[in-house]
Amino acid sequence: MYNRDILADGFNFIDSTLREGEQFRGAHFTIDDKLEIAQLLDRFGVEYMELSTPVASPESARAIRALARMPRRFKLLTHIRANMEDAKLAVDCGVDGADVYIGTSRYMREYSHGKSLDEVIRIGQEIIAFLKSQGVETRFSTEDTFRSNFADVMTVYRAIDLAGVDRVGVADTVGIADPLATYNLISNLRDVVSCDIEFHGHNDSSCAVANAFCALQAGATHIDTTVLGIGERNGITPMGALIGRLYASDQKLVAKYDLPLLAEIERLVAAKLGIVIPFNTPITGEVAFHHKAGVHTKAVLLNPTTYEAIDPQDFGMSRMIDVAHRLVGRNAIRDRALGLGIHLPEEALKQVTARVKSLADDQPITVADVDRMLYDMPIAVED
Amino acid sequence: MYNRDILADGFNFIDSTLREGEQFRGAHFTIDDKLEIAQLLDRFGVEYMELSTPVASPESARAIRALARMPRRFKLLTHIRANMEDAKLAVDCGVDGADVYIGTSRYMREYSHGKSLDEVIRIGQEIIAFLKSQGVETRFSTEDTFRSNFADVMTVYRAIDLAGVDRVGVADTVGIADPLATYNLISNLRDVVSCDIEFHGHNDSSCAVANAFCALQAGATHIDTTVLGIGERNGITPMGALIGRLYASDQKLVAKYDLPLLAEIERLVAAKLGIVIPFNTPITGEVAFHHKAGVHTKAVLLNPTTYEAIDPQDFGMSRMIDVAHRLVGRNAIRDRALGLGIHLPEEALKQVTARVKSLADDQPITVADVDRMLYDMPIAVED
Repeated sequence: MYNRDILADGFNFIDSTLREGEQFRGAHFTIDDKLEIAQLLDRFGVEYMELSTPVASPESARAIRALARMPRRFKLLTHIRANMEDAKLAVDCGVDGADVYIGTSRYMREYSHGKSLDEVIRIGQEIIAFLKSQGVETRFSTEDTFRSNFADVMTVYRAIDLAGVDRVGVADTVGIADPLATYNLISNLRDVVSCDIEFHGHNDSSCAVANAFCALQAGATHIDTTVLGIGERNGITPMGALIGRLYASDQKLVAKYDLPLLAEIERLVAAKLGIVIPFNTPITGEVAFHHKAGVHTKAVLLNPTTYEAIDPQDFGMSRMIDVAHRLVGRNAIRDRALGLGIHLPEEALKQVTARVKSLADDQPITVADVDRMLYDMPIAVED
Repeated sequence: MYNRDILADGFNFIDSTLREGEQFRGAHFTIDDKLEIAQLLDRFGVEYMELSTPVASPESARAIRALARMPRRFKLLTHIRANMEDAKLAVDCGVDGADVYIGTSRYMREYSHGKSLDEVIRIGQEIIAFLKSQGVETRFSTEDTFRSNFADVMTVYRAIDLAGVDRVGVADTVGIADPLATYNLISNLRDVVSCDIEFHGHNDSSCAVANAFCALQAGATHIDTTVLGIGERNGITPMGALIGRLYASDQKLVAKYDLPLLAEIERLVAAKLGIVIPFNTPITGEVAFHHKAGVHTKAVLLNPTTYEAIDPQDFGMSRMIDVAHRLVGRNAIRDRALGLGIHLPEEALKQVTARVKSLADDQPITVADVDRMLYDMPIAVED
């Protein structure tokens, strides 16, 4: 198996919040929204941003022109069908690059565009030649790659690579790929093409983050992400979760990004969409660093790394030691007492712990209930 | 690499909603809550349910006794520390099995229990002998397996297997494991022990579903899940998402479960916790089958499989074709018109599509706006 040194070789995020994300239910970004989101993602450090095709609507084209003019470090892309008309309009809008796509699976060829494999290659070659002649960075992606015939897609990728494309794209359009399948396909592709490799993975079977990570291990150089993973259906690889996955493997992998901005970016996009940030969101979710069971809190108080793969401080977040429940342990009660300036002997801490468990057995309680029990204890006499 | 035939060999879900799930922020299940959740999960078809240790609180012990008495098909487990006192109380509560755990990583051994490897093995052997003598199915799990010394954990597993345990457990306690690491560790373990293998994975780096799936491919026989993935911090493998992952690979894998109950189970638990079901939840989430972009809706109308890895009907869910936005295509507009009994020629459909895009460019619109445009068209003259 091929194993890429992700840290040494590097990788790029292609943020598609303003393309794939526009395909999320209820997403309606004005040009001002797009500029605001883009400015924040630019500060965060994403290497690329992809916008909806200018063919979608007049405002879509105007948005691309507006982002093309803004001061930025990221490269601006648009996502277009494999036809010359779309490619010409993309160039006219002033993008740095074009992400061209076409379906290669039986389903896509039968129910979407109806083209043969030779036609797919011929169209690809023609568009790549045009875009490259205009100085535009060009990606060519198959759609529904994982349900396509393996020999077919490798044939397409090889021909497209020889046509001078900058990057080929692998797309798990329906969210059916699993990690080993992703690893294997990208590994094989790495041997077939010399250009860069992009991975785009949907989350229908909850593997979009894992698959993106396996794609990087296997040789992919670019990963499509959106803020909070928004996109068609239940979306694609969420940027924050992939950041978490990379950080868990090696913190140095994400040192190039402005990590404390992550929570702000997610809040901005969630507010524009009127959606609730999922409770189970890694790093920035409301319970990401919430410790509750006694065994856990005891160890976290001694050394947080014992039960944390990610240091919340690196993201401007903080941990929470929960004491108001029946699974509480004495060490968490001691910590809460000390936080209130209350020094109790071990026997008294045992008593309070038992009282908290007993009260919490009968009803949900709050930290104020625990605090009251601590305040009610006789003041400790120092030994 | 080892590759297990999951369908032929089978697997078991260990639902831990009433143990790991109790460690979720704000989770406070009464005995009646526990019975209600257990009855629904029993109907769904989970093979095991795991409850919090009876040591946690008096009510925790009473809950185990109550579930032990209820009519059920699942086996009842409780989750206990590796000590005899806990084991004796578990047996007294009438469980079918006990899930024993102890930390093996440097972190756990230093900041949690402070025991040597030899002590870990000796304690394990003693508890297994006791539990088996009481006719109780016994699992012995290391904690934080992925940050433990590989030779150490394999030494522990081999000794525990020889001690006659029914099942060894691998735990990604801090959510640091990635899919290939999981696959590799379980593959190696499969060669070391002859007993069953359980995998427990946290979701801190969003790989809990992918890792569980890789564990099954590598030879694991039991997977820990909770409803909606609730648990310590941001939780563990969500049952529904893993069902989705298994279904995407082979529908037959999940044929043994009562799939249309999934949404009801999730709603019940979410209501008891007062949490919002994440928008990106596979299968049962509000956007799981929401199709929006023109290219997608055109193909889905011809054959839903083109953009769906999972058939919503198998879960009692339905798909949604969204027409009220600027990414809309003519085929989706035609479908909506036909749904209203309006038959329009292609030229008229083109006009409506352009009008929808134009209006949606200026402001968010609703399906009522689209319907009004369709009603306002002159009635078609049949050719």
